[in-house]
Amino acid sequence: MKVYIEPIGKLINEFSKLPGVGMKTAQRYAYKVIGMTDDEAKDFAEAIISAKKNVRYCKICGNFSEKDVCDICENRKSDTICVVKEPKDVIAIEKLNEFNGVYHVLHGTISPLNGVGPNDINIKGLLSRIAEGNVKEVIMATNPDVEGEATAMYITSLIKPLGIKVTRISHGIPVGTDLEYADEVSLARAFVDRKTL
Amino acid sequence: MKVYIEPIGKLINEFSKLPGVGMKTAQRYAYKVIGMTDDEAKDFAEAIISAKKNVRYCKICGNFSEKDVCDICENRKSDTICVVKEPKDVIAIEKLNEFNGVYHVLHGTISPLNGVGPNDINIKGLLSRIAEGNVKEVIMATNPDVEGEATAMYITSLIKPLGIKVTRISHGIPVGTDLEYADEVSLARAFVDRKTL
Repeated sequence: MKVYIEPIGKLINEFSKLPGVGMKTAQRYAYKVIGMTDDEAKDFAEAIISAKKNVRYCKICGNFSEKDVCDICENRKSDTICVVKEPKDVIAIEKLNEFNGVYHVLHGTISPLNGVGPNDINIKGLLSRIAEGNVKEVIMATNPDVEGEATAMYITSLIKPLGIKVTRISHGIPVGTDLEYADEVSLARAFVDRKTL
Repeated sequence: MKVYIEPIGKLINEFSKLPGVGMKTAQRYAYKVIGMTDDEAKDFAEAIISAKKNVRYCKICGNFSEKDVCDICENRKSDTICVVKEPKDVIAIEKLNEFNGVYHVLHGTISPLNGVGPNDINIKGLLSRIAEGNVKEVIMATNPDVEGEATAMYITSLIKPLGIKVTRISHGIPVGTDLEYADEVSLARAFVDRKTL
């Protein structure tokens, strides 16, 4: 005899597709759903359908958007473009309330080992935005890993000859960390990228 | 400007209602959904609706069921009833493939501090099943916490006078644990409930 009745088994299976969710956690989530009111369950299901249906990518910057052009591209006039790997990086930066420019989402990074070349990510879009002539600075905010660095290098090599200022976000030891516990790569980087006070 | 566009914000909010899910995890789940195909998202939403709509409680034992009477009550003829707190306890026990009797789900335990009295949980149903006359043994498998013990005691005091054998699952140190690391309550319990070899 199977342990779960079908509707529960199916729901557990769906939850277990979420990142980092195993059978035990999926089971807890499923019980929670079964314990919801009908309306709560309906709201949950509709939120999934609606997010899938209504979330598109901004045709200018590639960020999540409900419309053709995202709120940021529509409302901010800026000559500074921040280049990131994924839409969630935009959200991480927006939460800081520090950056007032616009974004460009690459939707990936160059990774020859995984068969991702320069033409597989949204570099062309960036170049055509720059070709329009209003861009003064491009900030490379890809992740500080091998692919992120390689992508930043590659894009820099394309843009710099056009006379655009290209910058990279700084890497080093995280604020609040004891030197003793900082990882070696970050600490080494903090020395290389040291600033004159 | 709000950080999330509405459909994403709503979905994150729904995911954050799941047990143990904070904003960061809810955000990861939401991104996963947005990255799904339309069909995958539809399957997910439908699994939620279907689980909520098709899962009822067995009218005999109170376990999860798709029909009026659950598979276990329908297929097993047994004179042994295992009393548990919640439907998920049934699943935990069924996974063992050890117990061949039937179940009775209380849907709670007596907890005066939380205003849950004997009439608020499904004890009446248990008594009427016993009144039908085919029950020889009742195994109290409520949790080994204050409420679980109190509930087991209370039900025992009702059933024992009827001449029914009432047993309690054993508590002690978990199999595979070093004595040194066992918690004190379990170790003390292991001494009190010691068996003659």
